[in-house]
Amino acid sequence: MSKKQGRQTIVFASPPLVSSWASFVGPKEGQGPWGEDFDQVLDDYLFDEQTWEKAESKMLREVVKQAISKRYYQPSEIELLISGDLLNQIVSANYAARELSIPFLGMYGACSTMAESMLTAAMAVDGGFFSRVVASVSSHHYTAERQFRTPIEQGVQKSATSQWTATAAGAVLLEAAPGGNPRITSATVGQVIDMGQSDAANMGSAMAPAAVKTIKAHFDDLNRSPDYYDLIVTGDLGKVGMALAQELFIKEGLLPQPNYSDCGVLLYNDRQDVNAGGSGCGSSAAMLCGPLLKKMSEGKINKLLLVATGALMSPTTSFQGETIPSIAHAVALENI
Amino acid sequence: MSKKQGRQTIVFASPPLVSSWASFVGPKEGQGPWGEDFDQVLDDYLFDEQTWEKAESKMLREVVKQAISKRYYQPSEIELLISGDLLNQIVSANYAARELSIPFLGMYGACSTMAESMLTAAMAVDGGFFSRVVASVSSHHYTAERQFRTPIEQGVQKSATSQWTATAAGAVLLEAAPGGNPRITSATVGQVIDMGQSDAANMGSAMAPAAVKTIKAHFDDLNRSPDYYDLIVTGDLGKVGMALAQELFIKEGLLPQPNYSDCGVLLYNDRQDVNAGGSGCGSSAAMLCGPLLKKMSEGKINKLLLVATGALMSPTTSFQGETIPSIAHAVALENI
Repeated sequence: MSKKQGRQTIVFASPPLVSSWASFVGPKEGQGPWGEDFDQVLDDYLFDEQTWEKAESKMLREVVKQAISKRYYQPSEIELLISGDLLNQIVSANYAARELSIPFLGMYGACSTMAESMLTAAMAVDGGFFSRVVASVSSHHYTAERQFRTPIEQGVQKSATSQWTATAAGAVLLEAAPGGNPRITSATVGQVIDMGQSDAANMGSAMAPAAVKTIKAHFDDLNRSPDYYDLIVTGDLGKVGMALAQELFIKEGLLPQPNYSDCGVLLYNDRQDVNAGGSGCGSSAAMLCGPLLKKMSEGKINKLLLVATGALMSPTTSFQGETIPSIAHAVALENI
Repeated sequence: MSKKQGRQTIVFASPPLVSSWASFVGPKEGQGPWGEDFDQVLDDYLFDEQTWEKAESKMLREVVKQAISKRYYQPSEIELLISGDLLNQIVSANYAARELSIPFLGMYGACSTMAESMLTAAMAVDGGFFSRVVASVSSHHYTAERQFRTPIEQGVQKSATSQWTATAAGAVLLEAAPGGNPRITSATVGQVIDMGQSDAANMGSAMAPAAVKTIKAHFDDLNRSPDYYDLIVTGDLGKVGMALAQELFIKEGLLPQPNYSDCGVLLYNDRQDVNAGGSGCGSSAAMLCGPLLKKMSEGKINKLLLVATGALMSPTTSFQGETIPSIAHAVALENI
């Protein structure tokens, strides 16, 4: 029997167990509303390394080690690592994989990479190919600023629609196991959507249509209504993108739900000067692998839909006048 | 029963059919020994676009369309596109996916991306998740030079160990189908290997140890000897890397085989001024989706092991003094 339902959604016959998880965040994220829910809050942005890039890669490597150590595994006992990040050539993931020596598949989905990696990992486990797979991502405020924007030292004024790239990393360990919770029960693979927005300082509104389209596809494909979930969280639309998403929900006939929020909005508090909110693939990964999975393990959330969103442009394509293509992938986590 | 054998290799229970394929190459590649075996040889490097980057993305989009049109499919009938390229934020793939509107997973494995995408696509099909999946990649000489090296206009002298990034794209369509050949029968997921080489103008020798390690893992995991295959091709080690790989084969107890070659060596002839040979993820993709799959369809090759290799550094990590981590993934194609 096909595991695909509708055009974009796959349903796992033996839902992979999320057997452990871990999250690391930077100092600013640690000062936000969820500081106590992360495994580690870094003291500074260098994490005892010489460069921000090496610090990001170390954060990714250490969060993977922390996730697997909670199940008393060594890296050599993990069969597959699926990982990515925002940097050119996903070097944070590549160098982390070098140190971990786990068979490795690198992914790039911008800020959607956590959901993309998790759904690929879930296929690898449910398909019977691998029985212990880690999905993980990272982002780092200063590596992203250096690469995508202007030098930090320039102190450029940020626009109100811009988002703050989170310094954060998250990892989940998926296992083929008969008992336990939570589990990845289904996933919806996104399509690239581009509504013609070209302002890289307003990525939330570029990504909102992709998020809404994937959420609608998820509900249509599974013949499910939004109240099926205790919580639906988008990845990092921020305040501007989230408000637009809520408008688009109405347009698409999905009534605004009290059970909807956004990781980029949740991650910081209002006094933290992050303009429209958080972004970066670490944003949704850390929210998932910190507070949200903790709430699932406590039974306070039993059905969660994570919809991580990514803006797929590069500085080069922006210079060449291209608009911003976006994508969103949805992963359903359930206590069953 | 587990589909994994040994540490790194998966065996497909219902080997996905490679039901069609296509390849596009640039003018220089068309003048090489295999010009007549590619579906299209571009007249120039711009492909009626304004920039090399847009030309590369168009090449990737068109090669996907050509592959699926051979089976009389529309893009809307393809269930999943798995694709990547060498550019920052894999923009060639992202913009191609935007135009194709196929549910999309972006991968980054540098020049190993074709094998990485194919093995992920094969998991998606054999696992029962999707029944028609395209795996595709591209590279473009001038986009790669612009991004990774020095401006073309500077006319920098190349070293003898350097490789020429191929302007090339390839796509395969995998289907769950009872009859037909060739099929993807098994795959070996690579680990990141770094022997401490830091010369980005000698990537072949940086990648050779990764290729040999994956080939050895493939044979060990499956308890197979190299003469099982009619042809074993590495992705793009070039002449320098291939010579080193042949040394390492002896060291690892894999005797040098007459059935071994390298796509970066094969793609050009000796008069084409490409120094140590071709590189770029299009190199192995075009060789596979041009001459090699043609020979499989003619029964001249019945068992092929494609071992695509990738150098996973970035210009930023090279500036920061890092060495070059490398990876190789192997995909076995067989007429069965």
